[in-house]
Amino acid sequence: MQRNRFYTLRFSCPDRVGIVARVAGFLAEQGGWILRSSQHADEQTNRFFMRVEVRAESLGIEPAVLRERFAPIADEFGMDWRVSDSAVRHRVVILASRQLHCLYDLLERWQCRELDIDIPCVIANHEDARGLVEWHGIDFHHVPIGRDDKAAGFAEIERLFNHYRGDTMVLARFMQILPPELCRRYLGRVLNIHHSFLPSFVGARPYDQAYQRGVKLIGATCHYVTEELDQGPIIEQDVNRVSHADSVTDLARCGKDIEKTVLARGLRYHLEDRVMVNGNRTVVLR
Amino acid sequence: MQRNRFYTLRFSCPDRVGIVARVAGFLAEQGGWILRSSQHADEQTNRFFMRVEVRAESLGIEPAVLRERFAPIADEFGMDWRVSDSAVRHRVVILASRQLHCLYDLLERWQCRELDIDIPCVIANHEDARGLVEWHGIDFHHVPIGRDDKAAGFAEIERLFNHYRGDTMVLARFMQILPPELCRRYLGRVLNIHHSFLPSFVGARPYDQAYQRGVKLIGATCHYVTEELDQGPIIEQDVNRVSHADSVTDLARCGKDIEKTVLARGLRYHLEDRVMVNGNRTVVLR
Amino acid sequence: MQRNRFYTLRFSCPDRVGIVARVAGFLAEQGGWILRSSQHADEQTNRFFMRVEVRAESLGIEPAVLRERFAPIADEFGMDWRVSDSAVRHRVVILASRQLHCLYDLLERWQCRELDIDIPCVIANHEDARGLVEWHGIDFHHVPIGRDDKAAGFAEIERLFNHYRGDTMVLARFMQILPPELCRRYLGRVLNIHHSFLPSFVGARPYDQAYQRGVKLIGATCHYVTEELDQGPIIEQDVNRVSHADSVTDLARCGKDIEKTVLARGLRYHLEDRVMVNGNRTVVLR
Amino acid sequence: MQRNRFYTLRFSCPDRVGIVARVAGFLAEQGGWILRSSQHADEQTNRFFMRVEVRAESLGIEPAVLRERFAPIADEFGMDWRVSDSAVRHRVVILASRQLHCLYDLLERWQCRELDIDIPCVIANHEDARGLVEWHGIDFHHVPIGRDDKAAGFAEIERLFNHYRGDTMVLARFMQILPPELCRRYLGRVLNIHHSFLPSFVGARPYDQAYQRGVKLIGATCHYVTEELDQGPIIEQDVNRVSHADSVTDLARCGKDIEKTVLARGLRYHLEDRVMVNGNRTVVLR
Repeated sequence: MQRNRFYTLRFSCPDRVGIVARVAGFLAEQGGWILRSSQHADEQTNRFFMRVEVRAESLGIEPAVLRERFAPIADEFGMDWRVSDSAVRHRVVILASRQLHCLYDLLERWQCRELDIDIPCVIANHEDARGLVEWHGIDFHHVPIGRDDKAAGFAEIERLFNHYRGDTMVLARFMQILPPELCRRYLGRVLNIHHSFLPSFVGARPYDQAYQRGVKLIGATCHYVTEELDQGPIIEQDVNRVSHADSVTDLARCGKDIEKTVLARGLRYHLEDRVMVNGNRTVVLR
Repeated sequence: MQRNRFYTLRFSCPDRVGIVARVAGFLAEQGGWILRSSQHADEQTNRFFMRVEVRAESLGIEPAVLRERFAPIADEFGMDWRVSDSAVRHRVVILASRQLHCLYDLLERWQCRELDIDIPCVIANHEDARGLVEWHGIDFHHVPIGRDDKAAGFAEIERLFNHYRGDTMVLARFMQILPPELCRRYLGRVLNIHHSFLPSFVGARPYDQAYQRGVKLIGATCHYVTEELDQGPIIEQDVNRVSHADSVTDLARCGKDIEKTVLARGLRYHLEDRVMVNGNRTVVLR
Repeated sequence: MQRNRFYTLRFSCPDRVGIVARVAGFLAEQGGWILRSSQHADEQTNRFFMRVEVRAESLGIEPAVLRERFAPIADEFGMDWRVSDSAVRHRVVILASRQLHCLYDLLERWQCRELDIDIPCVIANHEDARGLVEWHGIDFHHVPIGRDDKAAGFAEIERLFNHYRGDTMVLARFMQILPPELCRRYLGRVLNIHHSFLPSFVGARPYDQAYQRGVKLIGATCHYVTEELDQGPIIEQDVNRVSHADSVTDLARCGKDIEKTVLARGLRYHLEDRVMVNGNRTVVLR
Repeated sequence: MQRNRFYTLRFSCPDRVGIVARVAGFLAEQGGWILRSSQHADEQTNRFFMRVEVRAESLGIEPAVLRERFAPIADEFGMDWRVSDSAVRHRVVILASRQLHCLYDLLERWQCRELDIDIPCVIANHEDARGLVEWHGIDFHHVPIGRDDKAAGFAEIERLFNHYRGDTMVLARFMQILPPELCRRYLGRVLNIHHSFLPSFVGARPYDQAYQRGVKLIGATCHYVTEELDQGPIIEQDVNRVSHADSVTDLARCGKDIEKTVLARGLRYHLEDRVMVNGNRTVVLR
């Protein structure tokens, strides 16, 4: 079941003739065995996106060496690029509040190694999650977000995130709006799960909004957090059927199931370096 | 395959104790064999909705007699009510334009009697559909909607609808906005298929809007037409998965499949007297 | 959010004229306010199924009295019937093994009162779940199922189920086949989640079977356990899209999400007394 | 909307280091602008699959020349390969019977150029489709399949298919089992739509089978026809939700919608040279 170690190279750059040839040629010269490769050429922006998984053993070099050798090609093509190593665990800090379904769900996936990540700590603005988190052997921090002084709380969250050397921050139904400068500083590293099928029902109480509008499906959206509320690039979405017979409470219950799977799928794509931002859209390379 | 003749009684009224007992008691006294029955009690508006199918043979009376006998009960409970007869074919006038997928789809369902309706005529603001419609033995009327004088076109559409004694008007990708007074006059009798998952992407070019927002699912919505564009009560919706690799053209192609099934399902619910409007929401009794 | 106390009457009986009238009439005489009611008339078997929720307060009597008063009607119509009380918590015993995703999922729903049940104990043939279960304050019993002497293990499971006065037994990926006499004794009270879209891929290793057949969707099925393996009446099913790029491990991971939601939905229908068995099919009254 | 002319190269071969480099290098040398490229490495069979779309204009050569130049590489890697040209229309012969929903659906897609193919003729074992087909300006052939002498009918079908130089044969609810030698002779060129979610409900009357088993979703499967009935490689599948309230007739009606879209999607993948057979599974490169 355990896959062997591999490196993931991903990049985007202006499209032109010869990119794949150059990159694949480079990898072949190093003896690189390609496990999986995917590309996307965006016709509107004329930008090219690529992601390749290469067996580490076939290359026989460390990621740092690979990066050094690849850098001239990246320069030549003007790439925005990254090499990651499957042997290095991603560090994911989870922010939670009082509703724990997404947290339970992520902890189960972590516990059984479906998500092969480190969760250095969970931060919440309420105490509800403490017992569960600590029972899993994970640090828990209660950081209240005061109505009148939110800045102090967010400063503490940022301090903890850095202290624990977090790579990615996941808002698992955190229910608080991050300050703009924090969004800017960690752009592309903070994932949120919004409990509606965006762009419908932005903001507060989306299940109430969905009920009032009488929609026949409800949804959830996993997106990168940006300064504009619920406007960030969408990573993943899904929906479930509801009917006139469902109250707002029923919608919320039914929605929990979508929130969990959509967040888990979006996070997985992000962790596997499949997601690249293209303007306000995402390219998700399978 | 052919179901025996039945009458459908449907109503809504303020909720209270004893409604089902009174209605079911009345039907039992007449010897009525209930084929199917469904109810909904709306807790927010305290309104009760019910739909019953009764075998005509078991009652042994004509619908007019049934209506006469039921009227006192309807009065007593303050019902908004209707009795329909499965032996009387609904008359559906279809409005089309240049894209014919919904029209093809409805004609096939009519041809094989999946939809057991009469289509007295098809009206379109272009000539494209004429051949197909006339080959099916259905009258076709080309009514141009001029940029500067839309009123004349819509007056002619209304005249034709009445001339052909239409019960229901279906906008099968008609792409023109009906004038407000026409919406008011035929409230609850005009169905539209909008090519987005409402309330997202109201108005023109929804697939372009969906592309720009980078959604991961696209949808379609069948709703009653009201004065406010794309704001009418939703009857049915569905979605399909798309990805970053899909152009606007791909979204439009993929969307056609959802438009066809959503319109057909919505129309079917309407024709079977399953849909009742509750404020700006619908109750769809299965 | 908390709904007021209500009684649920459900029954099936041979279909004939006047059943709804009689039942609704009886309830109206008692002052019963109907919250929700649904029926189904099976044309093939000529059997009628009904479920009604009535506000306890409007009746002003205890369930025992209601049962006593209703019994003559039940006799008259030859009903298979039951009255349950929303104030009495269902006792659900969960059987687990080494894969804990369904268990995590059920515990979260129990913890936040989405499932308003008692879980008197969890039984497993491995120790893996102990910590999590006991942290939730629920009794845990490790009952090994020996390869050569399975009977002893199952006898102990039955003893525990009875000792804890369990109403329903849930096999949450228990991975052991229950002995026939146990299936017979608790017919309609034992739910299983099978990790395929039945009737495809009965028995062991369904994800391997699905991979070998090259299906484009994988599924899960919640059903009542009967003597014949994976042949019991189906309560709920769902599927997820997969592709050629997915390994057996990927199918299993993707399948976990469907297993969790399908089991939770099936269990919910069962607990709310919505499921009635009709031959080897189920009627699930919404 | 019209995409510029492009060539599609697709192949499979034993996996090894350097395939992508060699192929992409070759294309880059010819000045080939890659529009879209996808790969799959099958870990079980150690086989590599690839599909590339290249702008014809960027190559500046005809397909025959491209084939000639690529042949040595194909030999070197032991490829099973093909180059197709978007300017050459695929010739699709449709076989129909009495139920016309798939035929209507395909004709609409052809009429509006969603499917940019030639339909040289439609063959059916009943006369029902003649009028519709001929109205579209397409040849229609009625070929009865006698109960006692099916061979003559199938010989005539094969003769017509060859006479019209068909590339692909589509069984659009043809309802007749093709003789084994015909299956062998046109392996990978005959698509069928089966009205169940295979491998469930093989053979006759799948909706009856689905009804009897009480499944909660029904499906359809588009697959290549092989000698073993309903056992060929699956190209595409989908499902729709049904309930206890749906009769066999309802299942069939609801199933029509899935049949249409699944056949159209499967055919599209096939026509775009996305489908490669891998044992009894398919690789569908998006």
